[in-house]
Amino acid sequence: WARGDSSNRVMYGRYTQDLGVYAKEEAARLREGSQRRSVSERSRTLDLLEYDKGRCAKCRICTVRCQKFLISRVGEDWIFLILLGLLMALVSWVVDFCIAICLQAQKWMYGGLDSNVFLQYLAWVTYPVVLITFSAGFTQILAPQAVGSGIPEMKTILRGVVLKEYLTFKTFVAKVIGLTCALGSGMPLGKEGPFVHIASLCAALLSKFMSLFGGIYENESRNIEMLAAACAVGVGCCFAAPIGGVLFSIEVTSTFFAVRNYWRGFFAATFSAFIFRVLAVWNRDEETITALFKTRFRLDFPFDLQELPAFAVIGIASGFGGALFVYLNRLIVQFIRKQKAINKFLMKKRLLYPALVTLLVSTLTFPPGFGQFMAGRLTQKESLVTLLDNRTWAKQGIAEEFDYISHSQAWKHPQVNVFVTLVLFIVMKFWMSALATTIPVPCGAFMPVFVIGAAFGRLVGESMAAWFPDGIHTDGTIYPIVPGGYAVVGAAALSGAVTHTVSTAVIVFELTGQISHILPVMIAVILANAVAQSLQPSLYDSIIRIKKLPYLPELGWGHHEKYNIRVEDIMVRDVRYITLNCCYRDLHDVLLTGHLKTLALVESAESMILLGSIERAQLQSLLSQQLGRPRRLEYIRERAAAEKKRLSVVSNPGSEDGSQRANHEVRFQISTEESSFSPTRPVPQKPLKPALKRPVICPLQSSPSSSLLLFYFLQIAEWEEQQLDEQVNFNNCKIDPAPFQLVERTSLHKTHTIFSLLGLDHAYVTSIGRLIGVVSLKELRKAIEGSVTVKGVKVRPPLASFRDSGTSSSENEATELHKLWDRHKSMSLPREHGKVEEEEEEEEEQVEGEEEEEANLLFFNPAKPQTCKNPQGLDRYLILERVLFYYYYSSLLVTPLPPHSSTPFPLSFHHPCPRFMNYPVFSPGALH
Amino acid sequence: WARGDSSNRVMYGRYTQDLGVYAKEEAARLREGSQRRSVSERSRTLDLLEYDKGRCAKCRICTVRCQKFLISRVGEDWIFLILLGLLMALVSWVVDFCIAICLQAQKWMYGGLDSNVFLQYLAWVTYPVVLITFSAGFTQILAPQAVGSGIPEMKTILRGVVLKEYLTFKTFVAKVIGLTCALGSGMPLGKEGPFVHIASLCAALLSKFMSLFGGIYENESRNIEMLAAACAVGVGCCFAAPIGGVLFSIEVTSTFFAVRNYWRGFFAATFSAFIFRVLAVWNRDEETITALFKTRFRLDFPFDLQELPAFAVIGIASGFGGALFVYLNRLIVQFIRKQKAINKFLMKKRLLYPALVTLLVSTLTFPPGFGQFMAGRLTQKESLVTLLDNRTWAKQGIAEEFDYISHSQAWKHPQVNVFVTLVLFIVMKFWMSALATTIPVPCGAFMPVFVIGAAFGRLVGESMAAWFPDGIHTDGTIYPIVPGGYAVVGAAALSGAVTHTVSTAVIVFELTGQISHILPVMIAVILANAVAQSLQPSLYDSIIRIKKLPYLPELGWGHHEKYNIRVEDIMVRDVRYITLNCCYRDLHDVLLTGHLKTLALVESAESMILLGSIERAQLQSLLSQQLGRPRRLEYIRERAAAEKKRLSVVSNPGSEDGSQRANHEVRFQISTEESSFSPTRPVPQKPLKPALKRPVICPLQSSPSSSLLLFYFLQIAEWEEQQLDEQVNFNNCKIDPAPFQLVERTSLHKTHTIFSLLGLDHAYVTSIGRLIGVVSLKELRKAIEGSVTVKGVKVRPPLASFRDSGTSSSENEATELHKLWDRHKSMSLPREHGKVEEEEEEEEEQVEGEEEEEANLLFFNPAKPQTCKNPQGLDRYLILERVLFYYYYSSLLVTPLPPHSSTPFPLSFHHPCPRFMNYPVFSPGALH
Repeated sequence: WARGDSSNRVMYGRYTQDLGVYAKEEAARLREGSQRRSVSERSRTLDLLEYDKGRCAKCRICTVRCQKFLISRVGEDWIFLILLGLLMALVSWVVDFCIAICLQAQKWMYGGLDSNVFLQYLAWVTYPVVLITFSAGFTQILAPQAVGSGIPEMKTILRGVVLKEYLTFKTFVAKVIGLTCALGSGMPLGKEGPFVHIASLCAALLSKFMSLFGGIYENESRNIEMLAAACAVGVGCCFAAPIGGVLFSIEVTSTFFAVRNYWRGFFAATFSAFIFRVLAVWNRDEETITALFKTRFRLDFPFDLQELPAFAVIGIASGFGGALFVYLNRLIVQFIRKQKAINKFLMKKRLLYPALVTLLVSTLTFPPGFGQFMAGRLTQKESLVTLLDNRTWAKQGIAEEFDYISHSQAWKHPQVNVFVTLVLFIVMKFWMSALATTIPVPCGAFMPVFVIGAAFGRLVGESMAAWFPDGIHTDGTIYPIVPGGYAVVGAAALSGAVTHTVSTAVIVFELTGQISHILPVMIAVILANAVAQSLQPSLYDSIIRIKKLPYLPELGWGHHEKYNIRVEDIMVRDVRYITLNCCYRDLHDVLLTGHLKTLALVESAESMILLGSIERAQLQSLLSQQLGRPRRLEYIRERAAAEKKRLSVVSNPGSEDGSQRANHEVRFQISTEESSFSPTRPVPQKPLKPALKRPVICPLQSSPSSSLLLFYFLQIAEWEEQQLDEQVNFNNCKIDPAPFQLVERTSLHKTHTIFSLLGLDHAYVTSIGRLIGVVSLKELRKAIEGSVTVKGVKVRPPLASFRDSGTSSSENEATELHKLWDRHKSMSLPREHGKVEEEEEEEEEQVEGEEEEEANLLFFNPAKPQTCKNPQGLDRYLILERVLFYYYYSSLLVTPLPPHSSTPFPLSFHHPCPRFMNYPVFSPGALH
Repeated sequence: WARGDSSNRVMYGRYTQDLGVYAKEEAARLREGSQRRSVSERSRTLDLLEYDKGRCAKCRICTVRCQKFLISRVGEDWIFLILLGLLMALVSWVVDFCIAICLQAQKWMYGGLDSNVFLQYLAWVTYPVVLITFSAGFTQILAPQAVGSGIPEMKTILRGVVLKEYLTFKTFVAKVIGLTCALGSGMPLGKEGPFVHIASLCAALLSKFMSLFGGIYENESRNIEMLAAACAVGVGCCFAAPIGGVLFSIEVTSTFFAVRNYWRGFFAATFSAFIFRVLAVWNRDEETITALFKTRFRLDFPFDLQELPAFAVIGIASGFGGALFVYLNRLIVQFIRKQKAINKFLMKKRLLYPALVTLLVSTLTFPPGFGQFMAGRLTQKESLVTLLDNRTWAKQGIAEEFDYISHSQAWKHPQVNVFVTLVLFIVMKFWMSALATTIPVPCGAFMPVFVIGAAFGRLVGESMAAWFPDGIHTDGTIYPIVPGGYAVVGAAALSGAVTHTVSTAVIVFELTGQISHILPVMIAVILANAVAQSLQPSLYDSIIRIKKLPYLPELGWGHHEKYNIRVEDIMVRDVRYITLNCCYRDLHDVLLTGHLKTLALVESAESMILLGSIERAQLQSLLSQQLGRPRRLEYIRERAAAEKKRLSVVSNPGSEDGSQRANHEVRFQISTEESSFSPTRPVPQKPLKPALKRPVICPLQSSPSSSLLLFYFLQIAEWEEQQLDEQVNFNNCKIDPAPFQLVERTSLHKTHTIFSLLGLDHAYVTSIGRLIGVVSLKELRKAIEGSVTVKGVKVRPPLASFRDSGTSSSENEATELHKLWDRHKSMSLPREHGKVEEEEEEEEEQVEGEEEEEANLLFFNPAKPQTCKNPQGLDRYLILERVLFYYYYSSLLVTPLPPHSSTPFPLSFHHPCPRFMNYPVFSPGALH
């Protein structure tokens, strides 16, 4: 209730919370620093030792050297990467093994109960429902961050955003167990996305573990590099596809990729895929290392040139299908979010939604039921193997070749054509997969989409085979059409369309172990991407938008209009800034009015020369130092000492002038207090808000010295006012002296490049040193998306009319200097600190965010801004603290403190509220 | 002879040359601008038309819309990429076709002369010598830039350096024809590198052509994107390997890659590879689209797990071999450069070196001679096909299977074992390839290295097959070892080691059409890369260094020490800068003392606040405007007008005071001239150098008014001095208001990232707005290479002792503000404009560069700095110009000009010297 009023100028205390955090961080940093210093001192010792010629010294040198060598070896990247690869291969293999056991168990149960269809149905349905419910519940309880694919979050993290909760051991456990159960249920879910997340978790945890050995594991940019490699490992060990893994992870998680990190991904992914396949060999599953879904197509004549149109058709259709899948997935999430009634009910019974979805899906795939028309009894892996099969199903007699392989028989129905089975399979699996991926369990969508794509390709291939029973090739030998090749093309195309990647082509080659269909696959994948990218965002970008993670949209395929928008059209001109000679009050005002993480520091409001940027936390700590507990206590102690002296003088009746002085002082104090409301003060001050006084003073009213306390209260408020009027001393403040700067005429295209290259959050716009605006990710996003939606001829940006359209590109990045001459004519920006547009929008978003919290069930949203959003709540605690101060102050009057005590007040308990965990609160007993 | 003296302060004229260029550029820019304006006006017309409701208007709207639509379609990227792919596929196919014909012709000649060995030898040797000599001569005459691979230059261009001559039509023609002849000779040369260059040339020319249709083809950042795609097309259409092409081109040319450009490369490379292979089908070479070097290995059991150590050995040995190849190649170049005697001889007979090398190589491969022991009669393609052969050569009887394929017989020698043949082949081809790639013809080294690697792999494979005749696999079926698989692995590993790329693995899969050996190939390639990268730079980087192109070395594999070096350790503290209120004389001094392309603009020497950076050319044009011909003419005209008035007054004997004034004036002028040498002038001025006076005045001595001319001469010199003392008006000057800034504490690692990300040439180091240093590519390069060469424990940078080693990393990017408080205490940097270290080094480099010009024969060096390197030569012309001015001035006294004539002096001829092509020179006839 004290917000937006001038009275919260004295509510210094809101920053103590942050100060606590800050102090903790500082302490940790100092500890680290001292550790590092000790290391560097050790090395210095070594250097000194070399000059020491004694025998003992030589031994010691040797020991120290060996130690150093070992540590430096452990610190090498390749050891880390080998460990990561090994670990992930083991995890992948174990997960696969468990999933296989789970699926076998279901089959065994289903097979054992074939006497009674109802019991069979119960077994078929209950098993996945139990597993999915367990997975959802387990994940929800242990680490809700483990829900979903994880690729969107990794993309965000690799952009430089810190999502700390995403890389903890808890999340790792939840993800691995949740994923195993979810996939073991036989639902149409994938393991690729979660494995990217799991590999990143592994890398983060391994990095933490390795940092025990010291060395370079604390460096942040190195950690980002390692996370990028880990993503490659995740895909690589999931499919035993090292090259495809690296490329897929690059396409999916990065916007700019450092080629020097390339080898890391390849190294780790290759090692991981190698171990993953070696484990299969050791387990006697395979004779030697081969592909996961090996195909045996003809090498000499894989396809005819005249079949290429059919492949192109697969590509284009897959493009539309992929876009439809992304749209359907988003539609389901939004539908469930919007339906308040459903939503409330689901929120109460959090596990009901997964159970219902699982029930629906498994009912439909029940083999004796509808499942018989869509090969319902096959697991995902089995269907993929059959779809990539070498033989043709539709040609002449289907039954003849079908008999001896049990799995392929599932596609054959006595009454129904194989085409109908395939169409039903595609249609049913399509919506089932889109629905199943919205379940809050760890799961990906790649594999289901891959299977649907293979089925679609198979359908086209079988049609072609039926159309041209002897192949198309006319002269000489007969080369029949291979529908399996079409299935490969379809799988690559549809998964490429959904994820907006080209590297699914490589994954497909590595999965099948054959590269003979390279040209059809490439053509189909590129066409599918072209269609899908112009219709919908990728599945991962769609999830990023649903979860409202910070993101920067891509510029899209044809983006020439982007070259015409300039930074000046999109920048926010009303920049929050602080000046070098500002006082603490200005600091306080600026901190209260905005929620920006960093603030610009300019030389003066007149010159507006940008000197650097300061983080919000730094400013808060500055303010806390000025008004914080230590200085406050010091002031109180000083006052108390003066008071006591006065009292002792008063208690001594011999000295009359003492009592006189005391009386004078009281009167004088009151008069100063009154004078503080007079207009002679530099900053006009309003009286303290009644609301503020009420809770503080009322409980003290009954105390005998209440009027005295009120007086002290006012005195402290006045002290605060004085402190706020002092000039800020930036000496101990960390300033970023070179924040990223742009120029008014920088094109949107270039701005986008720089933002995504450097992972920027905001950049200042300067004109020859003068700060004139700021561009943040949000403005950039709006500009890109705004101009993308506008179609046709009129692609003029919103503010383009202010710009001379006739300017030639040669003036691009340069501004004229004449503005500089006006610099001394006090061309300061309007300093309106009232509500600006931006903030309102932020609040709007906040409201949205709160609504979404209800839909947490479906998509956990971790990146919600959490700083300073509820100052009222905080203030309540701070007033309480102030009351305690007065108690303490009055206690000083009773029990004098030793003047140089290191702990000037008794610490008795810590407040149980976590907000107060960082600083001590006085026990009431100590006060009286 | 006037260099380094204060007298060249008055040699304003040195900038007129640059002004000419500048004016030309400006004119071009204005022309462009007006074109663009007309386009935008057209679009505005369209907008207006929409409000016009007439019927005719509708038709016109329709027409304009259609026109717009067509133009916008033409402007789409994909049309460009399809055209590029089509063009490159055609070029690649035609080149391949011509090469095949050339090689067939050689074989035919050689086969036809089998009666006489000497004639046979002559034919075998003469043919390649003639072709190579023609290729070298043709390239040398038409476009020396076409020499060599082209990948190093493309890497430099993609870094943002402009090497204009490299992307011209001449170079295209020279490269294509030169390459065809060079490869047609049968020398161990490759076509991959040149094809990257040819594709880039194609893209640049196509871009130019498409810009005729208007649109976006003028945008530079787009052109860079297109060049990156073109590199992918080059590799893709050379090997029919779209995926490998994209990856290889990324690895070889980029340091950071924008994923949004990914699809461009894939799209164009796929289309190109498709057309390339379709042409082969249409030409009846193939039945359908398959791989270029198709292999037919077993699919079910490609290799045994226990064979992996052998593959690893191939990888490690290839790593050493690759490093040796790069070293050998560089050694040969440096040896020939250093041997002055050889060098001089070769310089005179430019074509002798290629001829000699060809003679040597073709003599050694002469089939009846030494060639019989190294399969000399096979072309590169044939040897590769035989090396990748499915069958085992060494097992049991070689002859039995060998008979029916003619090519494989070349490896079989009646007396010599196949192992000896292979070893000889490897050793001989190794040095031959290293030698042949130094010939100044368009050629690459990838394919020769690839073949050598395949031979090495084959050798290991045959050894393994001989060692384990029944395969290693123990239980059950016998799987014999496939030496062809080893050849695939060896080829990928050695070419990967030489080029430092991992993507050769993908290229190998696409070339052979089989991916079954993926794990061995990946393991070998990664090991080879690890070994080679720790020993030598890649072949392309080596060439970049030999050619002294601007480059930024990579940070290498284990680079944790890079995190400890900071910018403050490597930056140049003595920055050249200009202040906002400087006078033209300062500008002049700054321009004379340094050769930097851009100069920093600071607020004042005291505050040192960085306001921006100005290009050298801009400053030169500023100076030229102040002292240039128009203003000079104006001054002369004014003086002449005054003079004529005076003369007319003098000629009128009635007015006495006029003649008096004239006399006075002459005396006064002389006295001012004398006084100009007095110390009262703000800038102490030395007397004009005698050397300067001599050529000017001597020829005029005979003229009657020579003393008067001397007087005018001095007067103009004084006018120049006055002009130089005026304050600079930066109004019409283009200033980059946000040059890239770093902080003292930025780590070397981060600096490297930013430089390579943004393609920077230099960055200013600032401390809270104050300019304190500058880091250029050179310093960065030195720092990286310096610290790379230092091995072991002591990796402290040169200036590290100035830094407190105990600082924790938390202070990283932040500096304290207290320095800012000293800002007003005039903490300016020492303004020594004398010779600084940097410049001397630059001059050293220049000297080196001149020496290298002699070695031009071997490696054409295009990037030599050419600006202002020879001021003496320039001055000579300028003095001539000044003489002409005096002639003109004296002519003014005789023939009066109309006061407002637009061409104030008669233009009669242009000086034939190209230096003078930009401004008119007076005919002597017009003077008298």
